[in-house]
Amino acid sequence: MSELEFWFDFASPYAYLAAETIESAAGEAGVAVRWKPFVLGPIFQEQGWADSPFNLFPAKGRYLWRDLQRETRRLGVPWRRPTRFPFNSALATKTATWIEPDERLPVYCRAVFRAGFAERRDPATPSVVSACLRAAGLDDSALERARAEDGGRRLRADVHRARELDIFGAPSFVVDGELFWGNERLASALERAWISPTLDCRSPP
Amino acid sequence: MSELEFWFDFASPYAYLAAETIESAAGEAGVAVRWKPFVLGPIFQEQGWADSPFNLFPAKGRYLWRDLQRETRRLGVPWRRPTRFPFNSALATKTATWIEPDERLPVYCRAVFRAGFAERRDPATPSVVSACLRAAGLDDSALERARAEDGGRRLRADVHRARELDIFGAPSFVVDGELFWGNERLASALERAWISPTLDCRSPP
Repeated sequence: MSELEFWFDFASPYAYLAAETIESAAGEAGVAVRWKPFVLGPIFQEQGWADSPFNLFPAKGRYLWRDLQRETRRLGVPWRRPTRFPFNSALATKTATWIEPDERLPVYCRAVFRAGFAERRDPATPSVVSACLRAAGLDDSALERARAEDGGRRLRADVHRARELDIFGAPSFVVDGELFWGNERLASALERAWISPTLDCRSPP
Repeated sequence: MSELEFWFDFASPYAYLAAETIESAAGEAGVAVRWKPFVLGPIFQEQGWADSPFNLFPAKGRYLWRDLQRETRRLGVPWRRPTRFPFNSALATKTATWIEPDERLPVYCRAVFRAGFAERRDPATPSVVSACLRAAGLDDSALERARAEDGGRRLRADVHRARELDIFGAPSFVVDGELFWGNERLASALERAWISPTLDCRSPP
């Protein structure tokens, strides 16, 4: 049994869908999830994209918003299309790098996603990040560290690692270095994690 | 009950997966499929793409070939990665516009896809197109018409219609003007076709 890494940018609406559904799916499969917030901006820029593909490719953008409306309804996930998109996810992500990766990190991450995609609050705003920390039972120390640091060394290291893993979009799932892109591959990623040879010999769920 | 339109470019490997699986899925749902081959090139060019996204975005391209290897194995679909990609699908598609849309059109289309993605034969070659026609029980008259016509009026009309439907990639499924993109949305498209209000009142399958 391997761990599954869940790589995402807070500004990705499809990653929001994954954030809302991954723990129950992974729980059923008996797979542990490691949440890896990062920023896609530098990787998109290397692809020649200076904006979200939602904005760069109009027909695709129109489709994706419509698809998200259908998918959130189908999955029972709260949804309000953001009035401005994409929002700047750097502060919320830098803050996440200063949170211990225990059970409070997923709670914080889900709160950030909900702010952006269900509550029309801008996760680029410090007060919104602060409220998300409180929702996870945390004080502002991670936010203060994120605001104090110059450049975001931890975040840069995570983006570097994402590049090494050949990540080009979000959500991405990584199991033993094998990459799966998009919510539709979560089941395959979980299966890969489940069958991956390790010392853990417990029987199938 | 509505009809489902299946829009695709013969050079799309994900459309190949759809071509191999759509009839059984639609049959189970009791939905009729209308096969709509067209060419994505002009639409990609309007997005600023002069090549396949597989080639334009290297990390994404590497991922997609790996994903196709996994998916074809999972679905039990024959697969040999083409040595040259993308191939030029114009002749095979123009030929398709001269085939009556009866049950032989899907047979022809599947033969073209298999030539490109399972047999390493180039569907841009007239002899390959001719063999695909024979596989569908047809003579070369559609191919001859395609080669004789100047510009491909029928194909241009289909691309125009695809643009009107806001199609930006393949496979795409259209039900009553509602667009679904990618194999992962086939189930939703079939459900939409199934519940769509019409005069057909037969009970659920």
